[in-house]
Amino acid sequence: MKIVKEITKFKTKSQYQILDLTEKAERFLEKAKIKDGILLVWAFHTSATLAINEAESCFFKDFQKFAKKFFPRGKKHYYEHNDLNVRTENLVCGPGVKECLNGDSHIAHMFVGSPSVTVPVEDGKLVLGQWQRIFFLELDDGRQREVLFKAMGV
Amino acid sequence: MKIVKEITKFKTKSQYQILDLTEKAERFLEKAKIKDGILLVWAFHTSATLAINEAESCFFKDFQKFAKKFFPRGKKHYYEHNDLNVRTENLVCGPGVKECLNGDSHIAHMFVGSPSVTVPVEDGKLVLGQWQRIFFLELDDGRQREVLFKAMGV
Amino acid sequence: MKIVKEITKFKTKSQYQILDLTEKAERFLEKAKIKDGILLVWAFHTSATLAINEAESCFFKDFQKFAKKFFPRGKKHYYEHNDLNVRTENLVCGPGVKECLNGDSHIAHMFVGSPSVTVPVEDGKLVLGQWQRIFFLELDDGRQREVLFKAMGV
Repeated sequence: MKIVKEITKFKTKSQYQILDLTEKAERFLEKAKIKDGILLVWAFHTSATLAINEAESCFFKDFQKFAKKFFPRGKKHYYEHNDLNVRTENLVCGPGVKECLNGDSHIAHMFVGSPSVTVPVEDGKLVLGQWQRIFFLELDDGRQREVLFKAMGV
Repeated sequence: MKIVKEITKFKTKSQYQILDLTEKAERFLEKAKIKDGILLVWAFHTSATLAINEAESCFFKDFQKFAKKFFPRGKKHYYEHNDLNVRTENLVCGPGVKECLNGDSHIAHMFVGSPSVTVPVEDGKLVLGQWQRIFFLELDDGRQREVLFKAMGV
Repeated sequence: MKIVKEITKFKTKSQYQILDLTEKAERFLEKAKIKDGILLVWAFHTSATLAINEAESCFFKDFQKFAKKFFPRGKKHYYEHNDLNVRTENLVCGPGVKECLNGDSHIAHMFVGSPSVTVPVEDGKLVLGQWQRIFFLELDDGRQREVLFKAMGV
């Protein structure tokens, strides 16, 4: 059995941006030379995740509206995770530094997509349906992000 | 290591129909003769997905009500994906052809279930809890659908 | 290829309790002596599931509020699954025995997390991002629960 991996790094721009990772995954598989098996895609984050869906920009806008309605950001909703008078754990933010005030992102992460997606591989290629693409889904403000491709097979 | 696969095809009848794939998966495993490993179940769609849950028809009706409330269909909600005055991509529909006017289905796909489910296999059988069944979940109007079973192990 | 498995059993206390399984998974991997591969984590339930997120107790409280709002419990919402005048299947409850009156838990299971999470393994350890932890998520009243760790690799 062969096991091959690669980490891909990229920068997102804004909340609910959807990045298409399908071509990166296909290029990884070409180099990995695994003909038959699985590709595990893993997003290393708790405020960003993965999803399978169609690459259609009107749908992207629909999704952003739904997500913002379900998980209101900032002052539109009280999050204890954002309340520095209450919260004492994992504090990497403070006055003027807002990186940890992302209560909505963590909630969205519980309901949207999955950080762990396993895709079938055959003839050295992803086995996807006609409209299926592998998306990285930013749930927080834009920032540096990392995804692991790990292929196992023969 | 052994890798065995099979595609199963079937027709769904209506939105939010839940089909139990557990027996199909079990019959596939019997033929695959993989004793110990994993079974990747993959739905090839962006407007249908998979879920693990209990086969109880009252729960199915409850779920349909929740899904229809969360993701209103048709004219109950404006979807840019359904607005042919705005949308220019992936157009396989037009006047009188409604197959692509499924904005709600794509949104539901982001929040419900997962098209990628990996199930443990032992003694040549699925390792499921007492109430667990593998479901195919139609998120769009009924149509022809395909699911891949891919087993890896020894 | 090596395949190693272990079932871990534990008791939860109350609905929407979040238990951190990361250390249990790490100890399992130490014993399994699989250096490179994947760890499938599987929750055996239809009214409890798994999630990847940050271990921060204010976020846990935020999540509980969202879940209770989205999926109201008990008399706050009519569930056909809870209506013993209508339901006829999988009845393990009756007058005074409420174990099956968990319509909200099954609905939550369709929308929150996934009972099937595959985590990458390298150098005999979980490959997790800085904030990522593997959670068991109780969606019903507290009770005895079981999770499978199944590692495959070399």
